[in-house]
Amino acid sequence: MTGTAGAEVAAVDRGAANDEAFARLARCRPRLVDVAPALDVVPGMTESTILTSGAPLDWPAYREVHRAAILGGAVYEGLADSAEHADAMLARGDIDLQPCHDHGCVGSVAGVYTASMPVLVAEDPVTGARSFCTIYEGPQRERLTYGVYNPAVADNLAFIRDVVGPVLKAALQAGGPIDLFTAARRALLAGDELHSRNTAATLFFIRELLPRIAGLDAGDPGRVRQACEFLRQGDLFFLHLGMALAKLTADRARGIAGSSVVTAMAASCREFSIRVSGLGDEWFRAPVPVAQAKVFEGFSQSDVAPMPGESLIMETIGLGGSAAAAAFALRGYSGSTAERMIQQSLDAYQFSVGEHPELTIPYFGGRGTALGIDIFRVLETGIVPKMHAGVATRTGGHIGAGILAAPMDCFRQAAQRYREVYPG
Amino acid sequence: MTGTAGAEVAAVDRGAANDEAFARLARCRPRLVDVAPALDVVPGMTESTILTSGAPLDWPAYREVHRAAILGGAVYEGLADSAEHADAMLARGDIDLQPCHDHGCVGSVAGVYTASMPVLVAEDPVTGARSFCTIYEGPQRERLTYGVYNPAVADNLAFIRDVVGPVLKAALQAGGPIDLFTAARRALLAGDELHSRNTAATLFFIRELLPRIAGLDAGDPGRVRQACEFLRQGDLFFLHLGMALAKLTADRARGIAGSSVVTAMAASCREFSIRVSGLGDEWFRAPVPVAQAKVFEGFSQSDVAPMPGESLIMETIGLGGSAAAAAFALRGYSGSTAERMIQQSLDAYQFSVGEHPELTIPYFGGRGTALGIDIFRVLETGIVPKMHAGVATRTGGHIGAGILAAPMDCFRQAAQRYREVYPG
Repeated sequence: MTGTAGAEVAAVDRGAANDEAFARLARCRPRLVDVAPALDVVPGMTESTILTSGAPLDWPAYREVHRAAILGGAVYEGLADSAEHADAMLARGDIDLQPCHDHGCVGSVAGVYTASMPVLVAEDPVTGARSFCTIYEGPQRERLTYGVYNPAVADNLAFIRDVVGPVLKAALQAGGPIDLFTAARRALLAGDELHSRNTAATLFFIRELLPRIAGLDAGDPGRVRQACEFLRQGDLFFLHLGMALAKLTADRARGIAGSSVVTAMAASCREFSIRVSGLGDEWFRAPVPVAQAKVFEGFSQSDVAPMPGESLIMETIGLGGSAAAAAFALRGYSGSTAERMIQQSLDAYQFSVGEHPELTIPYFGGRGTALGIDIFRVLETGIVPKMHAGVATRTGGHIGAGILAAPMDCFRQAAQRYREVYPG
Repeated sequence: MTGTAGAEVAAVDRGAANDEAFARLARCRPRLVDVAPALDVVPGMTESTILTSGAPLDWPAYREVHRAAILGGAVYEGLADSAEHADAMLARGDIDLQPCHDHGCVGSVAGVYTASMPVLVAEDPVTGARSFCTIYEGPQRERLTYGVYNPAVADNLAFIRDVVGPVLKAALQAGGPIDLFTAARRALLAGDELHSRNTAATLFFIRELLPRIAGLDAGDPGRVRQACEFLRQGDLFFLHLGMALAKLTADRARGIAGSSVVTAMAASCREFSIRVSGLGDEWFRAPVPVAQAKVFEGFSQSDVAPMPGESLIMETIGLGGSAAAAAFALRGYSGSTAERMIQQSLDAYQFSVGEHPELTIPYFGGRGTALGIDIFRVLETGIVPKMHAGVATRTGGHIGAGILAAPMDCFRQAAQRYREVYPG
């Protein structure tokens, strides 16, 4: 029952379709089942594929952070000798650039996936469906996803490939899958909104890892210890696990005829775009907005680049900016206040189908998080989703965090198409 | 400069003395440096010593939960063959029953320490001062500290003694001390108030443990894994680390001539009592109040026993009930509301000398936690500290949580003594 652009569907019950979308979103319980090279597990991945964030653009349109990350990925993977070489290959189509979302993936910032990069494999135990996300590179300012490629970035990616990925894989093999949903649920009670703040979720994940790590690989404890040290540094490690969880969850609601629920929000360096359950895989696009950012010392708002990124999948399922009232500690990071964070979460209920039965916000006395963005509610209320996002400079590097408002135009276009597809 | 009951001190500057107490409380940064049997590290501990919570009582006055825990401890330690035998030995003084607080210790609930029990050793890196707390028994309802002694309780205590304690000691030896202050500071940003909720603090502690555990004791990984599984169960594991931290902190402010700052709050099964910095080690006692409790299913308010306990050391340094606004998720556990939790924390500022420079409450926009309870401010405002406490039945066992109000009479008596000692 995929509601593609065909006009054969005459009259649909939008309410019932959205209830079904909501029910599917609400019942997904992702687990981390494996960590493996993208080539081995991501559908459609080849040795010369690069996945990247956002609705696809022609190669020459990629710019700044986004362009630099793709070129860096090509060189890191050994597909090209230099950025210039990679540029020529991408222009000729010798490197197959594809959108993450079409391969069960979501991209952090530029979202570059190459064949050898290890990916976190999330699985829905009921349907067996899977989604994927790369491993968080760490808290340092310079990272491939933020458009920086240099020897330090390459060494770190190789360390993730050769040490972190294999140790995580071995731990999962030793002790079985790790329940990501429970980590996310408990983290909301411990000050995370699961986009800009993942401190508690990372810790819950580490706690599950602890007995799986104890006594692991006694022949080479040094490697296990190095991987543990890596995990210990980054309070955002869980973000990429959360993104895999959110992608898996959002995908459960794809393709329900008549549903006006948003199933993806993504950005490239040019465009912000959304997908809608009953409208197939079409992207509804608008120019990408620039985040209202709080930048690290030494930078200013004028340094903030138009940013690619698909961590907005967190807001797609009602977390991140929509769950701001769960994470008052973010005040310092995103420049907001407790009052504004509360209002932002109350606003999210206005444009959503319902409230999650298990993911809750303590300040609201256990009220569920907003779930199921309905494009028609966005248009009726005039309230768009607000997203917590990292921000980069035009020349690359992580320099702060901000709040990004989804462009209303995406919802307007989607509603127009909905009326064409479902004229009832 | 211990301000004991001598009347030789003529005129003191109470404000300056309280500022000094505040400064000492504010600068203590405890670390966990060792885990060792009480006999080896606790000052004054002997093979026949039992430490227990609260200002000391004559043996026949101990009742219910408190009495049962002491008798159980004596049998567990092998000091007596049976509860009856232990009772007779305690009556004769053959078992030396002592208050925890006089030995650098604080007791959870009945707070029974025996010679072989491993204790967490917290150290102030500046002064080298130490404090101690037993290891949390786990989340099961029946525990020695809650007045239950049976084969399962004994087995669990033996497991803690033989596995958990030694593994923690080995981890510290392998990787060095663990910073408890930082764990507490970050936990306040992650939904803990550090008395009834220690979820995040426990996780931060586990994260520090992770690289110390990796590759540890490869000869017997089973034991390490068992210890890790134990740590993974209990969200309150950090409470006893927090109590050691708080005792060490509160003790820094002891014995400042002229200071009216509270340095201990403790309860036995009969009395609630406080100590005051400028008044030496005298306890100011009042009948112990019963907590307004939310009990687990199957129990009612009439099951709630008058409870011993010294985890009130958390509120003594402005955490727990005074930091309720940091932990909205406790609503379900303690039966309060977000509004009441905010008010409870605002109230704490009324009776305190100042605000902690580093321990902060996110909802208040990074305002420091209340620090330094001043007995005169309590009397002037009529507001007493409210404490988050576990609750037990009269027959033993953990059955819920509640809010305990410190009796005003303790503060009245202390103020009267203060005026005698410092007539200026």
